Amino acid sequence: MSGRLTVIGLGPGNADQVTPQASEAVAEASFFYGYKPYLDRLELRPDQARIASDNREELARSNEALAKAAEGHNVAVVSGGDPGVFAMAAAVCEAIEAGPAEWRGIDLAVVPGVTAMLAVAARIGAPLGHDFCAISLSDNLKPWELIERRLDAAASGGFVIAFYNPISRARPWQLGKAFERLRTHLPASTPLVFGHAVGRRDERVVVTTLEAADPSSANMATLIIVGSAETRVIERPGMSPLVYTPRSAPGAGT
Amino acid sequence: MSGRLTVIGLGPGNADQVTPQASEAVAEASFFYGYKPYLDRLELRPDQARIASDNREELARSNEALAKAAEGHNVAVVSGGDPGVFAMAAAVCEAIEAGPAEWRGIDLAVVPGVTAMLAVAARIGAPLGHDFCAISLSDNLKPWELIERRLDAAASGGFVIAFYNPISRARPWQLGKAFERLRTHLPASTPLVFGHAVGRRDERVVVTTLEAADPSSANMATLIIVGSAETRVIERPGMSPLVYTPRSAPGAGT
Repeated sequence: MSGRLTVIGLGPGNADQVTPQASEAVAEASFFYGYKPYLDRLELRPDQARIASDNREELARSNEALAKAAEGHNVAVVSGGDPGVFAMAAAVCEAIEAGPAEWRGIDLAVVPGVTAMLAVAARIGAPLGHDFCAISLSDNLKPWELIERRLDAAASGGFVIAFYNPISRARPWQLGKAFERLRTHLPASTPLVFGHAVGRRDERVVVTTLEAADPSSANMATLIIVGSAETRVIERPGMSPLVYTPRSAPGAGT
Repeated sequence: MSGRLTVIGLGPGNADQVTPQASEAVAEASFFYGYKPYLDRLELRPDQARIASDNREELARSNEALAKAAEGHNVAVVSGGDPGVFAMAAAVCEAIEAGPAEWRGIDLAVVPGVTAMLAVAARIGAPLGHDFCAISLSDNLKPWELIERRLDAAASGGFVIAFYNPISRARPWQLGKAFERLRTHLPASTPLVFGHAVGRRDERVVVTTLEAADPSSANMATLIIVGSAETRVIERPGMSPLVYTPRSAPGAGT
């Protein structure tokens, strides 16, 4: 008997950014697996069970959730933001590929959500208004050299860059190194946006430049957007500035 | 008297993927500007006015909406997906920067939404599970040479790539050229996902390879995800395959 596993994206943090599809999936499931702060966002009924685990245990969590679903239960794995962006959907797929054949018969669904870079971008204008990329700065699962190669490719290609997982206690120097690397490609005046805890009560969005950017002002709840050479800042008297990347690039035909 | 302008993301198309924040913003506004198919998704009250315009008229639409807001009205500009990703938020910012000084005093808000690449990824597994980028294939607003340079940067950097605006009647050859270019960087077996009209009734998701990919099967409602050399396909008996990109890259320390 094969059950159901739904990987649910809860969005950046505000209850009003959780899609009705996600809320419905939460209402239907019986067992909830996830990182504790994400599970804490849910208001579960007494008949719904929650199994919290730590941040770094994505694969173990996926295996547990799949085993429970394979028993015939309706199981949910919850993620903040979108589960497909540096989150649980890939971990669940990895576990299915490596796991027993019967796990391939589980009815798997992924419910998308508003990922952090979209929420930060919306708060400040439209910095992702043209071609962009998303890079996780964590070198837990990939070599730092690969991250540097991708920074070079992204900056020299003119992409706006969103940094996920910019810094942590175990990874204190990577963000500073990334900024140094980008300074070899991009003007000192390139706009940067630090979005702290966007969608939560302690939300704070700061606009700075590549030259002035201070890595120590970031933490695990920060999402950083690095502009391209085209990204612009509009000052507004008495209001926060707008940051946006124009839809057109120099040399366009029209 | 300065009014309010809200740029609202309606998500990929399903009503249950519209966030409560977006629904509330729709309920509060009095004048709605947008591309007709997006306006058609709204159920407006008799006291709410809609002003539809064509696909290519983003800047004119932004100017009209800003002028209306500057008269003191509560105005909405609607986008499909997320308004910050190849959509209206950047056009509105461009119009503000170029427009009269008083437009900078308008209370501007952007309501994020689930953008197409997240919806397509969720339908098929987790192809965006590692570093990725989003590229618009439209050369209306940037030279084709820049697009080719970005394809080179993205593919050689090992990014998964999401193509927005892959093809249209006025741009029939660009997608085929892009595939050709990518074939010089990536294995023929690289997985590709064609997501057609995801989130709508005629939704269809097709998994293929870079070698077999047929540009003529795409249309304006298609979002394409091109895997990296790491992207994997899990076959499932009696079910559609899963496509995912592992969280780890070769050479990782752990």
